[in-house]
Amino acid sequence: MTRSAKAVPLTVGIELGGTKCAMMLGTGPDDIRAEARIETVDPHRTMDAIDDLLRQWRARHGFEAVGVASFGPLDLDPRSPTHGCVVSTPKPGWSGFDILRRLHCWAVPVGFDTDVNGSAMAEGRWGAAQGLGSFAYVTVGTGIGVGSIVEGRAVRGLGHSEAGHLRIPRPPGPAFAGVCPYHGDCVEGLASGPAVLAYAGLPAEQLSRADAAWDMVVSALAALCHNLVLTTAPERILLGGGLGMGQPHLLPRIRAALLASLNGYGVADRIAAGIEDFIVQPGLGHRAGPLGALALAVDACLVEAR
Amino acid sequence: MTRSAKAVPLTVGIELGGTKCAMMLGTGPDDIRAEARIETVDPHRTMDAIDDLLRQWRARHGFEAVGVASFGPLDLDPRSPTHGCVVSTPKPGWSGFDILRRLHCWAVPVGFDTDVNGSAMAEGRWGAAQGLGSFAYVTVGTGIGVGSIVEGRAVRGLGHSEAGHLRIPRPPGPAFAGVCPYHGDCVEGLASGPAVLAYAGLPAEQLSRADAAWDMVVSALAALCHNLVLTTAPERILLGGGLGMGQPHLLPRIRAALLASLNGYGVADRIAAGIEDFIVQPGLGHRAGPLGALALAVDACLVEAR
Repeated sequence: MTRSAKAVPLTVGIELGGTKCAMMLGTGPDDIRAEARIETVDPHRTMDAIDDLLRQWRARHGFEAVGVASFGPLDLDPRSPTHGCVVSTPKPGWSGFDILRRLHCWAVPVGFDTDVNGSAMAEGRWGAAQGLGSFAYVTVGTGIGVGSIVEGRAVRGLGHSEAGHLRIPRPPGPAFAGVCPYHGDCVEGLASGPAVLAYAGLPAEQLSRADAAWDMVVSALAALCHNLVLTTAPERILLGGGLGMGQPHLLPRIRAALLASLNGYGVADRIAAGIEDFIVQPGLGHRAGPLGALALAVDACLVEAR
Repeated sequence: MTRSAKAVPLTVGIELGGTKCAMMLGTGPDDIRAEARIETVDPHRTMDAIDDLLRQWRARHGFEAVGVASFGPLDLDPRSPTHGCVVSTPKPGWSGFDILRRLHCWAVPVGFDTDVNGSAMAEGRWGAAQGLGSFAYVTVGTGIGVGSIVEGRAVRGLGHSEAGHLRIPRPPGPAFAGVCPYHGDCVEGLASGPAVLAYAGLPAEQLSRADAAWDMVVSALAALCHNLVLTTAPERILLGGGLGMGQPHLLPRIRAALLASLNGYGVADRIAAGIEDFIVQPGLGHRAGPLGALALAVDACLVEAR
């Protein structure tokens, strides 16, 4: 074992997703010692299953910290009385559930952030955003999540990035109300998997590349990118998730639509000069989720060590 | 003089605006020792006039740093070969002009940021955002500028906040192309002073409160606030500028429209609980500009002292 590999602590990452929970124990993508996947059911049974695995892994491998990258919205404000809880979700039993308190029983540092912020941190550490200070990780699938890193830190204030729900111009084409239960035609309401299904009557993977649904998706995701460029100033935007990774023909179209939308304003020329490197696929693919949780665990160790 | 007043360095703030340049020498809003205002003309004559004043002030008062809060867009990236320059502007002679190099002749630390980031820092230090880590300062006037502070620092990456140019839904009402030369109906294209003038045929201060132009302005500014909430997570949004300060009847309408737009999502309940304190007028009024430059100068001293 090299000195630098030794310096990275052995930790556990838990990606708590809406339907499943992916767990990894290791030091990084090239050194995963154990992996598991459980169903996300009600919070108590889910956390019991997580505890069972942690008990086995502690006995067999040991670990120095735990990271949780969770669906949300989450309360990430350490000064808030509900810090560590899920804020509000249609998932039965999870609204108000205190994830963090359950994990503090393990008496190790616990890293805690949204799933997309975790994935973003993992991409920054090991993936397609290495060496960048400010960047965004966008996942397009059942929903649309955005993790925003500014100068090495996930954006934090009153809440966290929820840029999948930005208000954007209605795309050209036939009227479509959008599928977001909160906002109708926000980005998620127009460009998520369920939006494509509702618009086209077929799931994304059965549509031809020429389907008009893609015009809507490209328009909405380009507007999202435009608004990210002008708010959180990313040096790169990673576009992943089931729909992002599964429809690579969208990437060149979104790049062109972003440049058309910026229309030369501000940093547009610098983006245009490197557009192929500006909007890219993530480097860690579907492993970004649990690796993101692992990255949060590593960071929790570092904070504790200070 | 108290100990804490002594600890704050005597510095110069230069607000470099599109038409005029406001300068202050002091330690803060309650201790301004000199003030001046010059026309912004071509860059060389403008900088010569600034140098003349700095020479007088150095002889008479001395100063430990200079801060410049400038119109932009600006290149704020220290690794960039054009760091310190105006990126692109319709103002003759200013595109590509290196503001920072001119001021380095004074051999004192120089703080440099956008006018709105400067104003935001001043509001955080002395005004309506004291004690907050993450907040936004929006100025609505001839243009729309947004300074975004996240955990105490102005958002920085590939460029800086230019959220006045966000893409937003077209407001209800008659078709109006918007006045932004780059984007047509972005926020600035719909809600700036020139947008109101183009839409209503009269300047803002001559319109009745019932004019339909205000519906458009409220819709656009609420969409801006919605998108800020979900990208940079502000704990408060300050809404200033000529139009923001001059039309106080807009504030309650924008607050209501923001809550309707968020529609209960994420942090909406926390915002609703304190909505009167969430969207507010700035505390420093029209002095936020030069005081912002002063705040940048103070910060430049602190960075240098580290």
